[in-house]
Amino acid sequence: MGLAKPDPDPLQDYCVADTKSSLYLNGAPCLSPTLASSSNFTTSALAEPGDTKANQFGFGVTLTTLANLPGMNTMARVDIAGNGLVPPHSHPRASVVTICLQGVILVGFVDTSNRLLTQRLKPGDSFVFPRGLIHFLYNTDPRKPASAVSGLSSRNPGAQIASRAAFVSSPPIPDVVLEKAFQISPQDVAKIRRNLGA
Amino acid sequence: MGLAKPDPDPLQDYCVADTKSSLYLNGAPCLSPTLASSSNFTTSALAEPGDTKANQFGFGVTLTTLANLPGMNTMARVDIAGNGLVPPHSHPRASVVTICLQGVILVGFVDTSNRLLTQRLKPGDSFVFPRGLIHFLYNTDPRKPASAVSGLSSRNPGAQIASRAAFVSSPPIPDVVLEKAFQISPQDVAKIRRNLGA
Amino acid sequence: MGLAKPDPDPLQDYCVADTKSSLYLNGAPCLSPTLASSSNFTTSALAEPGDTKANQFGFGVTLTTLANLPGMNTMARVDIAGNGLVPPHSHPRASVVTICLQGVILVGFVDTSNRLLTQRLKPGDSFVFPRGLIHFLYNTDPRKPASAVSGLSSRNPGAQIASRAAFVSSPPIPDVVLEKAFQISPQDVAKIRRNLGA
Amino acid sequence: MGLAKPDPDPLQDYCVADTKSSLYLNGAPCLSPTLASSSNFTTSALAEPGDTKANQFGFGVTLTTLANLPGMNTMARVDIAGNGLVPPHSHPRASVVTICLQGVILVGFVDTSNRLLTQRLKPGDSFVFPRGLIHFLYNTDPRKPASAVSGLSSRNPGAQIASRAAFVSSPPIPDVVLEKAFQISPQDVAKIRRNLGA
Amino acid sequence: MGLAKPDPDPLQDYCVADTKSSLYLNGAPCLSPTLASSSNFTTSALAEPGDTKANQFGFGVTLTTLANLPGMNTMARVDIAGNGLVPPHSHPRASVVTICLQGVILVGFVDTSNRLLTQRLKPGDSFVFPRGLIHFLYNTDPRKPASAVSGLSSRNPGAQIASRAAFVSSPPIPDVVLEKAFQISPQDVAKIRRNLGA
Amino acid sequence: MGLAKPDPDPLQDYCVADTKSSLYLNGAPCLSPTLASSSNFTTSALAEPGDTKANQFGFGVTLTTLANLPGMNTMARVDIAGNGLVPPHSHPRASVVTICLQGVILVGFVDTSNRLLTQRLKPGDSFVFPRGLIHFLYNTDPRKPASAVSGLSSRNPGAQIASRAAFVSSPPIPDVVLEKAFQISPQDVAKIRRNLGA
Repeated sequence: MGLAKPDPDPLQDYCVADTKSSLYLNGAPCLSPTLASSSNFTTSALAEPGDTKANQFGFGVTLTTLANLPGMNTMARVDIAGNGLVPPHSHPRASVVTICLQGVILVGFVDTSNRLLTQRLKPGDSFVFPRGLIHFLYNTDPRKPASAVSGLSSRNPGAQIASRAAFVSSPPIPDVVLEKAFQISPQDVAKIRRNLGA
Repeated sequence: MGLAKPDPDPLQDYCVADTKSSLYLNGAPCLSPTLASSSNFTTSALAEPGDTKANQFGFGVTLTTLANLPGMNTMARVDIAGNGLVPPHSHPRASVVTICLQGVILVGFVDTSNRLLTQRLKPGDSFVFPRGLIHFLYNTDPRKPASAVSGLSSRNPGAQIASRAAFVSSPPIPDVVLEKAFQISPQDVAKIRRNLGA
Repeated sequence: MGLAKPDPDPLQDYCVADTKSSLYLNGAPCLSPTLASSSNFTTSALAEPGDTKANQFGFGVTLTTLANLPGMNTMARVDIAGNGLVPPHSHPRASVVTICLQGVILVGFVDTSNRLLTQRLKPGDSFVFPRGLIHFLYNTDPRKPASAVSGLSSRNPGAQIASRAAFVSSPPIPDVVLEKAFQISPQDVAKIRRNLGA
Repeated sequence: MGLAKPDPDPLQDYCVADTKSSLYLNGAPCLSPTLASSSNFTTSALAEPGDTKANQFGFGVTLTTLANLPGMNTMARVDIAGNGLVPPHSHPRASVVTICLQGVILVGFVDTSNRLLTQRLKPGDSFVFPRGLIHFLYNTDPRKPASAVSGLSSRNPGAQIASRAAFVSSPPIPDVVLEKAFQISPQDVAKIRRNLGA
Repeated sequence: MGLAKPDPDPLQDYCVADTKSSLYLNGAPCLSPTLASSSNFTTSALAEPGDTKANQFGFGVTLTTLANLPGMNTMARVDIAGNGLVPPHSHPRASVVTICLQGVILVGFVDTSNRLLTQRLKPGDSFVFPRGLIHFLYNTDPRKPASAVSGLSSRNPGAQIASRAAFVSSPPIPDVVLEKAFQISPQDVAKIRRNLGA
Repeated sequence: MGLAKPDPDPLQDYCVADTKSSLYLNGAPCLSPTLASSSNFTTSALAEPGDTKANQFGFGVTLTTLANLPGMNTMARVDIAGNGLVPPHSHPRASVVTICLQGVILVGFVDTSNRLLTQRLKPGDSFVFPRGLIHFLYNTDPRKPASAVSGLSSRNPGAQIASRAAFVSSPPIPDVVLEKAFQISPQDVAKIRRNLGA
């Protein structure tokens, strides 16, 4: 598997991000190593389920980040309400390995030949999403929540939801571009924009 | 600019791809360096315009590849018919630098904060698209063709058109996923699939 | 956090390892992409607990590998019996992010200044181990098993248990080297070798 | 083709160089992403021909740089007067892909086996120069200018003209070194230094 | 040989570390290139033997570092007293190539299959230690000192002596962990700690 | 110091090159790890001085290579006769750290601003040459040989001697290119070619 590794190689045992620095680098400046403590290497951020009602798709994703875990690669907890969806999205700087912990999750990604590779995950099953390719996770059970843990191959993987990037960016992509790209009418563009909360 | 560099570092002056090998590697096996000749480092593949009528969007893209230029990074020639569109797409393994040679091209990309960064390019103007982010090129003139040359930061950048990956993959992404992701009806999904040639 | 990324960058959407090839490369040759199927991206290998009685330390680690999940980064399931220990070890090619799923786990790593950074993890807590540094996981509860899931930043992280590498390699490291390194007697060396199963 | 990729991997969508910072890094500090605008991703720097009379060789090279295009990989416009020459030079941190837009250009590079790989480019033809190897571009037509566009695989490729590095560095390389290296007399060294403008 | 290369790629000809900066980065900020001088690229730090009496093992290692040679990769001089030992240790961020200059040195490393690869080096003989694996160098002659020069593949390789990391870290690794890992008694743990100078 | 690291990252403890394989890769195929032995990690190739009479410049360089040390990074022994010269050359894929062992060596490199950074090395002194930049080593003493050991940051650094690449490549670079580049007459080009052994 050609997995992604977008992060620069380390020159130190660790670099605990100095989250108070006003300097913008490719990454973040580090605290002096002598100031690092065990708490910089641990977090309880993933201990509680994410809020699956905060968006119209029914999912909550909690990431370890430079802010809640200075000194970490990214691990993510994914919670999906009954029939909820993590909509088709891609990570420009990371591949993902996901293990299903609870419920049944239909997952899939589309490769650059437009082939869909898809699988139904039960608890304990794992799946890999290559870097930069559109993928989704769908809880097929209408009544039971599902959850998973994902490991991402970057400290800052980024995420771009295809439908939202296309229809509700700021400023908006010109209508004509979306009409042609999706072969839909101006009314359809307006409707989708509205439904997605533009 | 944090640009992408997905290719492994070289261990030789050059590795001319052995396009007849049946071995699949991350890349391609090389010809013996003693068999390499000047013709391996040159191509006329970009000398003629691409066919802008081969798809419904009105664009033609010709790439240098391992097949027409064993021994090359990727350079691309982009031809866009009047009002033609290179639809929103992303490259999982490359950033792109584009220089407009002819016509006027409206370009843009959406970042992971869902911001659109857009520009109108005249001949001689350049623009950069970061790796893995959705971007488009639109010829705003209904009557005159436009063309550009792009440099891509990988030998095999890959490309994924967002609308086609979502609606016309093989096998198809389940309807329910698209209904939720784009907040559209089952009829809308069927119509878009049909219009995009599924 | 300066995390490790020892794997070469990809040139393809994915490279499903051809586990039947007799060719030894830095990685593995790939199957033809046209032969890849969804099953190459999924595994149930982590669904069952590892055997915590297979070694004298009381832990079981199950890895996704090229063999059980051709096409994957490494995810690991760690099971630790009551008072069991994953003994001090290091991964020459990977950093690790671990999330505790069950029980209480005392974890720690020693940096190159010989400082121990240690933490007590409850379910939902995460911890990061930098690449190449000696670390351990200890189940402090004598009666209840503990388990965790780890993401590793390489397809082939490798692992070296410090005590076993020093005392039970094959052939053995000369006694005099161990006597000096650990400042112990020849009898002590012999006893530790014997106890560790040499 | 084993092409070069000397730039660190990105951790952000983009890093627009803060050209006012006094900090010297491997690269440049970034502006806060919230301050980035479309203008940071575009430039007209390559729209006009370079001055081919500014040096004794008859070429002008205009580069996109952190200064005129903060947020870019390097693209270059090469203009060569009739019978003008881009003299043998190398880029320590980049490979180059060049497409001829106008005129006829004789190009070539020498590999580490001292083999010359050379080609005559017409408009539309492309050629690749591997990283770190000496190469040249010569306009064989005495009357017509030639021009090309090049993509370079680094934000800061660097360039070292072999004749100038050897004979007109500051301070100069000791005469005896050049006498031995080129097997020429002290008078020859002095003459070449003078002719090259030392 | 799959050797390690943990350092980020350069974007400049060189980056002379600004050792007075209070900023902590992955590496160090650079001096303005216009301030760099020849003295930044040279050092006599390795000209004198290291003190082989400064530790209980009988070795002295002198490294080129950012402090004594701003602008360098790491080269090391290793001096070993008669029967002295560079105890089993690993470098989390570098592989090493060592050439024996004086005396006879027994060297070896243990791979992740717990195999010992070992060799007796005479002056002029070289040996390679892969990144992150435990290795040692032992002067087998009780009367004559030995010395070697090593090249390391990082500016900041780090070093972790296995016995000291396990037994004399600060704070100490809990006794129970060491008792289990080395299968020794609490008294043994206390004795080794004491002998190693805890 | 931004030093070069052109080699792909490892996925195995080590990859001993299979020098009998007919496959050309970026690197070399590996022997099965079970066939590796200690002899693959050691060589005496550098134990004897190189022949300083084999070329007109008076230097001999002996490299560890895949052939004499399968399983190694590159270490080089440099021997220079009285007043001998390692002529100005560059390594497209490696930086170099050199330690002077015997004699006095005048070294220097030219950066891309055409600045010469130069130093006189006595035994024990070290110097660093950045990747891809032209550098030389000159034994200033007419009577005594000098020697040094160099560590190079690639398994296959390559080397290009500027004078030989320009004047004695095969086929030759057209005369007119050299006349313009060095501002010399056709007779001068012919003389230099002849003197350098074309």
